[in-house]
Amino acid sequence: MRGKEMTRGKFITFEGCEGCGKSTQLRLLSEYLDKKGIDYILTREPGGSEIAEQIRRIILDGKNADMSDECEALLYAAAREQHLKDRVIPALNSGELVICDRYVDSSLAYQGTARGLGEKFIEMINYHAIHDYSPDLTVFLNLPPDKAFSRKHGADENDRMEQQGLDFHMKVYKGYLALAEKYPRISPVDCSGTKTETNAKIIALLESKGII
Amino acid sequence: MRGKEMTRGKFITFEGCEGCGKSTQLRLLSEYLDKKGIDYILTREPGGSEIAEQIRRIILDGKNADMSDECEALLYAAAREQHLKDRVIPALNSGELVICDRYVDSSLAYQGTARGLGEKFIEMINYHAIHDYSPDLTVFLNLPPDKAFSRKHGADENDRMEQQGLDFHMKVYKGYLALAEKYPRISPVDCSGTKTETNAKIIALLESKGII
Repeated sequence: MRGKEMTRGKFITFEGCEGCGKSTQLRLLSEYLDKKGIDYILTREPGGSEIAEQIRRIILDGKNADMSDECEALLYAAAREQHLKDRVIPALNSGELVICDRYVDSSLAYQGTARGLGEKFIEMINYHAIHDYSPDLTVFLNLPPDKAFSRKHGADENDRMEQQGLDFHMKVYKGYLALAEKYPRISPVDCSGTKTETNAKIIALLESKGII
Repeated sequence: MRGKEMTRGKFITFEGCEGCGKSTQLRLLSEYLDKKGIDYILTREPGGSEIAEQIRRIILDGKNADMSDECEALLYAAAREQHLKDRVIPALNSGELVICDRYVDSSLAYQGTARGLGEKFIEMINYHAIHDYSPDLTVFLNLPPDKAFSRKHGADENDRMEQQGLDFHMKVYKGYLALAEKYPRISPVDCSGTKTETNAKIIALLESKGII
């Protein structure tokens, strides 16, 4: 049903703190879209393409505990650029709906706020993601990390980001709340209910924004 | 002979196109400094520390031909931040002479000029290297790539940067010439003579600048 003038596909990102149920919600949304016959691609950051996955392994490797904050932020930005080129941009240009697990708001909340590098530095190193490929909608799964941690039964000891303490994740959370205040494209979704309730809220949100 | 108030060590970088004889000149300079009993650390970019070497392997891997220009530039900047933290800054703070094989001028010439990303983008993503840890002296081994290529008997087919054609390396060279015009810290050294002649020029330069 595509005309000669292809319109750019919609770009939706999912954000949230560790243990907020993001993976589960993305799975439930995928099942819903599959059932409805709605085309989409589901991808993730950091990673989502061959070179970006190589970068992901360096970032998350628990043995790389001495990584500098600036190095970490730049590696995320590098993986993001590669993933944009390899997967996101071609799909958007083909008119596809792209759903991405984490994007530039993760860098703003984790490295900008929680690591203390500041919003300006993160915006500088993520120039394209901020200016040329900003999401049409960002679903922020709003669950405070103290609740999330008790629900998840602990962090993966092999994942360098999950190893960070609750203090760090509370800073990330505050970073997300500030971003949601600043950017109208970010819609917080309350995740304190059941998986099914949250899934229903996400579907209602996507419908209300004309995404699906 | 160090006093209680440690002065920051000098930071010297070496730059040049592929095949300009940089490795040889760094070896000859090391031998000279060893003979004279002058303390220094010799390091290199990208790499020079554990995490930075992991990033180096991704950047230079000949199989990663699809790497985006922005990703490449960000990976160099990430490796640079890590190398600064792990090796350069601690050594400078201990008053040591640090000699580094490539630094931010490589990013300006290779990614900024030759890849066409522009100086401003490279400066943004290399904020610390540009503003806080600018070299005291940069030795630019000035040899046009067409001469260098004939001297080196071809490029390493496993090295993604050396695989680039002569056109690319001529752009890099022009980038270096423009940088040498702009920054007084960059001293071009004519490399058209023998190895020994070039070595003598470099030693004379370091002496004239009060580095050794």
